Amino acid sequence: MNPVLDGIAPSIIRAINARKRPGDIDLGLGEPTLRPDPRPFDAATAWVRTHGLPYTANAGMAELRARVAAYVGLPDRGAAENAVLTIGSEEALYLALKAAIDPARDEVVIVEPCYLAYPKLCQLEGIRHRMVAMNPADDFRPSAARVLDALGPDTRMIILNTPNNPTGRVWPEGELRALAEGLAARPGQPVRVLSDEVYRELYFTPDAPVSIGALWPHALVAGSLSKSNALTGLRLGWLVGDAQTIAAATKVHQLVNTAASTFSQVVAMDIFTDAANLAAHRPHYAERRAFLEGLMREHGLRWAPIEGAFYCMVRLPDHLAGDSLAAAEALLERHRVLATPGVAFGDSGEGWMRLSWVAEPDDLRAGIERIAEFFASAGK
Amino acid sequence: MNPVLDGIAPSIIRAINARKRPGDIDLGLGEPTLRPDPRPFDAATAWVRTHGLPYTANAGMAELRARVAAYVGLPDRGAAENAVLTIGSEEALYLALKAAIDPARDEVVIVEPCYLAYPKLCQLEGIRHRMVAMNPADDFRPSAARVLDALGPDTRMIILNTPNNPTGRVWPEGELRALAEGLAARPGQPVRVLSDEVYRELYFTPDAPVSIGALWPHALVAGSLSKSNALTGLRLGWLVGDAQTIAAATKVHQLVNTAASTFSQVVAMDIFTDAANLAAHRPHYAERRAFLEGLMREHGLRWAPIEGAFYCMVRLPDHLAGDSLAAAEALLERHRVLATPGVAFGDSGEGWMRLSWVAEPDDLRAGIERIAEFFASAGK
Repeated sequence: MNPVLDGIAPSIIRAINARKRPGDIDLGLGEPTLRPDPRPFDAATAWVRTHGLPYTANAGMAELRARVAAYVGLPDRGAAENAVLTIGSEEALYLALKAAIDPARDEVVIVEPCYLAYPKLCQLEGIRHRMVAMNPADDFRPSAARVLDALGPDTRMIILNTPNNPTGRVWPEGELRALAEGLAARPGQPVRVLSDEVYRELYFTPDAPVSIGALWPHALVAGSLSKSNALTGLRLGWLVGDAQTIAAATKVHQLVNTAASTFSQVVAMDIFTDAANLAAHRPHYAERRAFLEGLMREHGLRWAPIEGAFYCMVRLPDHLAGDSLAAAEALLERHRVLATPGVAFGDSGEGWMRLSWVAEPDDLRAGIERIAEFFASAGK
Repeated sequence: MNPVLDGIAPSIIRAINARKRPGDIDLGLGEPTLRPDPRPFDAATAWVRTHGLPYTANAGMAELRARVAAYVGLPDRGAAENAVLTIGSEEALYLALKAAIDPARDEVVIVEPCYLAYPKLCQLEGIRHRMVAMNPADDFRPSAARVLDALGPDTRMIILNTPNNPTGRVWPEGELRALAEGLAARPGQPVRVLSDEVYRELYFTPDAPVSIGALWPHALVAGSLSKSNALTGLRLGWLVGDAQTIAAATKVHQLVNTAASTFSQVVAMDIFTDAANLAAHRPHYAERRAFLEGLMREHGLRWAPIEGAFYCMVRLPDHLAGDSLAAAEALLERHRVLATPGVAFGDSGEGWMRLSWVAEPDDLRAGIERIAEFFASAGK
């Protein structure tokens, strides 16, 4: 067996999810509860009747690659050769690491709190990596200075996620610009930025999130239809970047799984005929977010600003803040609400709890009430 | 960039495919030309209307895993925990290597001629590997003795493919039994066998191919719906084996792409309601094979027995046998027939040419005529 696997810790999120009982209120979900538009599936089924279901080229259908690259919209990265279609954004992250990093020499710096697949993928690939935490005291506000300070001589990639899971923060343009300028000022080989933008369409700031790829040419952008279109099960994502890196990523992709599902690509072609289809669910989330914030305000909770995605980091009261895992377990046991301990997203998440607010309003209301009750009572 | 990628040679198959012009006869294809049954797609689209399209568990839907494991039918490997659903059989091969092999210590022995993704996956993962050739003078007849002789002290896995691409040979039960007995007689840690059975349903022997997994407990079996059901674009495959290895493979799968397409799994569930659906295309191939053999006999070609899959290895005449790549290029340039040089499947394939015979009868007839003409004329 490969001994590397023993070193990869099991997911805390999965462990606590496994303890959920029927009837518990689930604020732990990592995917939309909305139903996707079924029409692209009818269109794709008709396509199968005409065309069968052959392989596409390894990197995907050229026309879809071009549409995806145009949609992501990075300067000089808008052609088919700039995009490879992947098995969700998860595979895009894997391909970026596998193609762009030399495990014998390079180091990766990961911005946390974050989805812990980033460091685990580095472990899987034997890639040296370090975490750099955004400041919990500043509600995890994205900070270029913190990231730049963390870089070492061997750092060749930074991984960041905006809008962010779990914090809900969006990297503001000013911070991204400061990051790009700081990277440009560094001597030696340029440091790449792998930007996970899977929540790109779900933002509640006045303007759409800016991509580091608009400001820094050595960026790779991962995304998918999973969150924007409630299509997590479609497994259709992309990696966008310079043609050379995309060609290298495609070489890996070809060896590890040949190509993304042709059916999923045809569904995506239908959705990408109008990029507005990717924004269709945003008003729903904006409304749900406002509802949640009203509830949390009413119950005196403290939370980090929700600028994007469908999560919220809630500050644990002092008597619970030392052990977010124990707090989440107690909340589930005693009050039957599933939330995710902040520590599941890195050490900097300790003292917080992540709520997913894709649940129905009645569940959200009951969930927040019970959390407030738990905060008021537990451990006193 | 990852320097490992530079060492992985580009595919000869793709290089020659890229030279095909409109109107050329294509006997190079690696996928069925049949149309798949569209009904499971209608059923899956209806399912999306009711259920949306959420993620499944990482290893796939438990019910489908159980059906797949039962279908593969290995002793004591028939439960859901014995199968992980993958992005085609390609990912199953990757997962088997990534989970079961320690790149720091273990060596893999690969039976050739074969699909060269096996050694390339080893290169990608930094796994030491050696090729063991079946005897061209014996029409590549599978031989346990040859494989057993090739094992070294560090060998921990054998990769074989039955029915075989490109040779069309099927490992007979007697040879598999000899292999299992030879492995059982070896001292030390057991050697696993990774058996690529993606052509399992396409056999022309009196009995269905036997799996090494029926005879040797340390087997891992890869398969998919790609070839049996003309569903290469579905990207739905599986790895079946002992629960511990499947759990380790699932850990890798989760990190590199989360899960297989939910839509593809629902389509597969429909197909697996009756395993006879996987055998539905066999009569078509049996008929096409008989037609091809008639043509080849008529034109005096020499070929290795076609016992399975939809390929045929044709012996090049002596004046062409020294360079199968040059022969395939000349055949394409002068006679406008695309065939795959035998060397694309390992050194032992030199002197042969692989024909894929999924083309329409008229194309097959014209193709064989032109090949015979080429053999008679070229280089003389």
